[in-house]
Amino acid sequence: MRVLGIDPGLTRCGIGVVDGAIGRPLAFVAAGVVRTDAGAELPDRLLGIEHGIEEWLDRQRPDAVAVERVFAQHNVSTVMGTAQASAIAITSAARRGLPVALHTPSEVKAAVTGSGRAEKPQVQAMVARLLKLDAAPKPADAADAVALAICHIWRGGAQARVAQAQQEFARKVELARQRRTPSAQGTAGKAGEKP
Amino acid sequence: MRVLGIDPGLTRCGIGVVDGAIGRPLAFVAAGVVRTDAGAELPDRLLGIEHGIEEWLDRQRPDAVAVERVFAQHNVSTVMGTAQASAIAITSAARRGLPVALHTPSEVKAAVTGSGRAEKPQVQAMVARLLKLDAAPKPADAADAVALAICHIWRGGAQARVAQAQQEFARKVELARQRRTPSAQGTAGKAGEKP
Repeated sequence: MRVLGIDPGLTRCGIGVVDGAIGRPLAFVAAGVVRTDAGAELPDRLLGIEHGIEEWLDRQRPDAVAVERVFAQHNVSTVMGTAQASAIAITSAARRGLPVALHTPSEVKAAVTGSGRAEKPQVQAMVARLLKLDAAPKPADAADAVALAICHIWRGGAQARVAQAQQEFARKVELARQRRTPSAQGTAGKAGEKP
Repeated sequence: MRVLGIDPGLTRCGIGVVDGAIGRPLAFVAAGVVRTDAGAELPDRLLGIEHGIEEWLDRQRPDAVAVERVFAQHNVSTVMGTAQASAIAITSAARRGLPVALHTPSEVKAAVTGSGRAEKPQVQAMVARLLKLDAAPKPADAADAVALAICHIWRGGAQARVAQAQQEFARKVELARQRRTPSAQGTAGKAGEKP
């Protein structure tokens, strides 16, 4: 599964692409930043973000997109732009029919370091180690986006494992039911055949 | 000039379309609401808003789009959704090359009622009166979007008048300059003709 993570921002959207699957090592694919000119008008900036993200989606063809969930209580001066950039990111992915997941910063930290309160350098060191890189991708927004992609592979993986286990359990229950009540099934079948 | 006003919101985006020009009466065209299901996932809601706004743009073919400017200090519980809906609205219009203007709620109130602190019923009564309607369009989000379109026609009109006056002034200055220095102009022309 290839996941494209997006750390949304009006001036810099971090992008990180990681390949991975349940029980398999992670592989770093690419990371970078979509930038817009802080002096430009808002419509042009949002359009620039859209174009930049579309390019990444075209080039990397991810199976899923993970976007950082934005909260209103964060830095008020930048939160509006972050919310707007995240809307563009989410919609660009959803328009292509890609599954989009939102993860909170603490979910990302917890997935990568084991602690939801980890500091940025800790997260970056773990990103580098998990992907077998000499250092975390730069700038920090790109590294955050890579961490987001890792978080999604692991959380998505965990969710997929749970779903798989539930399906398997349901299948076993059904098999046991069929074994325990063959006559009832037979009767029901015959009853159904009666006019 | 046809203006499509958008009062952004995740659950309800008000839409109002008004025709108007400098020194000409306003004409109400249409108003309505793009709704999304509050129980749906965010990517589907944003996509729904995009589809709804695209439909309005296709049908009404406005010359300009006016979107309410969102501030972080507003209702914190809904401001993120409002910011995200506004990003979709702005980008949908900008993608078509339409000019997009942002107006604050107090600019809209001031344009329509003469006071930036007017109450909602006052704004709605003025919207109805200016457009010669029996009552303001409903729901309130649609009426707000219509007020936004009126604000844009009048503010845009004022800006156009200023630009026109500046052009006229520049033209007169140029004419006066040419009248005052006919020989200098002639000399320059002849000098230019020399090999």
